[in-house]
Amino acid sequence: MGAVTATSDDRRWMAAALALAERTRGRTAPNPNVGCVLVAAGRVVGRGWTQPGGRPHAEAMALAAAGPAARGGCAYVTLEPCAHVSPRGPACADLLIAAGVARVVIALRDPDPRTDGSGIARLRAAGITVVTDVAGDAARRSMAGFLTRRERSRPSVTLKLATSLDGQIALPDGSSRWITGAAARAHVHLERSRHDAILVGRGTWEADAPRLDVRLPGLSDRSPMRVVLSTRPPPSASAALPSSLIGRGNDPQGARDPLWIDSPAGIATLPADHVFVEGGAATAAAFLRADLVDRLLLYRAPILIGAGKAAIGDFGLGDLAAAHGRWRLLDARDLGTDRLEVYERTPCSPA
Amino acid sequence: MGAVTATSDDRRWMAAALALAERTRGRTAPNPNVGCVLVAAGRVVGRGWTQPGGRPHAEAMALAAAGPAARGGCAYVTLEPCAHVSPRGPACADLLIAAGVARVVIALRDPDPRTDGSGIARLRAAGITVVTDVAGDAARRSMAGFLTRRERSRPSVTLKLATSLDGQIALPDGSSRWITGAAARAHVHLERSRHDAILVGRGTWEADAPRLDVRLPGLSDRSPMRVVLSTRPPPSASAALPSSLIGRGNDPQGARDPLWIDSPAGIATLPADHVFVEGGAATAAAFLRADLVDRLLLYRAPILIGAGKAAIGDFGLGDLAAAHGRWRLLDARDLGTDRLEVYERTPCSPA
Repeated sequence: MGAVTATSDDRRWMAAALALAERTRGRTAPNPNVGCVLVAAGRVVGRGWTQPGGRPHAEAMALAAAGPAARGGCAYVTLEPCAHVSPRGPACADLLIAAGVARVVIALRDPDPRTDGSGIARLRAAGITVVTDVAGDAARRSMAGFLTRRERSRPSVTLKLATSLDGQIALPDGSSRWITGAAARAHVHLERSRHDAILVGRGTWEADAPRLDVRLPGLSDRSPMRVVLSTRPPPSASAALPSSLIGRGNDPQGARDPLWIDSPAGIATLPADHVFVEGGAATAAAFLRADLVDRLLLYRAPILIGAGKAAIGDFGLGDLAAAHGRWRLLDARDLGTDRLEVYERTPCSPA
Repeated sequence: MGAVTATSDDRRWMAAALALAERTRGRTAPNPNVGCVLVAAGRVVGRGWTQPGGRPHAEAMALAAAGPAARGGCAYVTLEPCAHVSPRGPACADLLIAAGVARVVIALRDPDPRTDGSGIARLRAAGITVVTDVAGDAARRSMAGFLTRRERSRPSVTLKLATSLDGQIALPDGSSRWITGAAARAHVHLERSRHDAILVGRGTWEADAPRLDVRLPGLSDRSPMRVVLSTRPPPSASAALPSSLIGRGNDPQGARDPLWIDSPAGIATLPADHVFVEGGAATAAAFLRADLVDRLLLYRAPILIGAGKAAIGDFGLGDLAAAHGRWRLLDARDLGTDRLEVYERTPCSPA
């Protein structure tokens, strides 16, 4: 339990903490979605994850669940425990010290300047063994929104495409129901629930009046804010908005008024750290042209369409060499007879 | 060795026979490409495969290699041994009987009316144990050309596409070098070597002057005949041709004069049982419209192109429901950072 380097048990418990962190991905902005597992004598005595809106923090929740059982135990946290007291709660580093935890394993150092190593230092000063950088890559992906906001002053963007084998998203008449099957469409709804905002272009908005909600049992309360990309103003303007938000339009569903932005860069002003871009082809192209796509979800059905509507419009690709090396396959799975591939931006891709 | 039903050893030896059968796939028309393994006392005593042009047959080759060692052994053959004597050689059923083989395991019954069960009957009448339908599906795929010729009076057709993730095969200016990487392109050449004929549309022929040969070490003698699909006559006509072949055009490479056909149905007249359709989009669409594609090879590079040239033109798809259920994923593999997916026509798909 006191090892100063990571063990295989450590990686296993961290994987459990990362799974907890996923529970509120897309609902903690501007806070990171953190997961925490407290282990004492080989068993879990407390579990926590950042609550919707950002508080309580994961460590506070896990410690509250553990009570005195945390003493002498080990805390697995996906992000460095915070070192700053806030009006909304005490510093998690202090809570861990007060609970008598003997060891803390951390996936990722917190880039927030109020912490940024001082949480780790405070734990060590209290005699706690601290191990860092355990499953750091997975933690970066889990908290992509928080980290992209810190590093690039904008949300993390996922572009979703649902295509035929030959890359078409609709027939020439626009019909697209359905290309992918029920399992793939349910997975799209699960991905929606992990994002703060769902974005479509005005064309899709007006043609389909999409609900853009989460229609999964038990997750219907998680429907993200809706955002429309349009270079023209919305049909009617109402509420006061951040500078680059044009306005809120009428909501054809009578709920969740959409936010309107006039360029992909407008996502920086959204109160969202994870944005899910769903289409159509011009919107996908606009985000690619602005180099604002971090992650690509490609749902593919085993069908051919031929002449139809292509998934992505012109995003200004000059030559084939420039297309290579930008995307790396991260995950793939079967969803019924469809297949999901998840790609992420490569490190060598320009930011 | 005398089992009258298949054992796991049988399936293993049949897999070896199927691998041998692949050696001359695309070079035995109008004969099937058959593989044969002779096993005695647990070891291989002879191996054979249909030789280019169709003779000797696989069994004759394997028996010649085994000599007296075949006596009492077991023959694994991917197709029912022939029962008819031809000017080019004796019936393989008779050869197996004469060699004193005790058991014959067969993947597939021969639909040729000159055999069609009579090979099996003759073996059994001679006291040989015969087991049938071992790895029959794999054998059907291996001899797809021969069987399609028998069942549909035309060659088996493979359509190859090499696309970006978004289904594009070129930039708007037509440039397509390179979308896929070296490993995928080498695999295309390997597939070419397994086909009697490579077909492109006139647009591709005139734009790229493609060599359409097999540029792999040790396989350069296997370059298939070249076929051009064109509704207009070729630039110059020369040799006498089957009825629906328009003519032979000038060969920009100075060798292997291409055959020209004026419609996809023209493949029926080619002296080929396996046709490899390589493009472009109009040609792919023509074959899909005629419902003449049996197998789809999809090479995909992890790049996005956006506005470019789509892989497949209009093939007359009326609605999305009609697109479903026609293709089944058979195999997938990584080729460098690219991915190959192999689809086959489903049984429920109209013939």
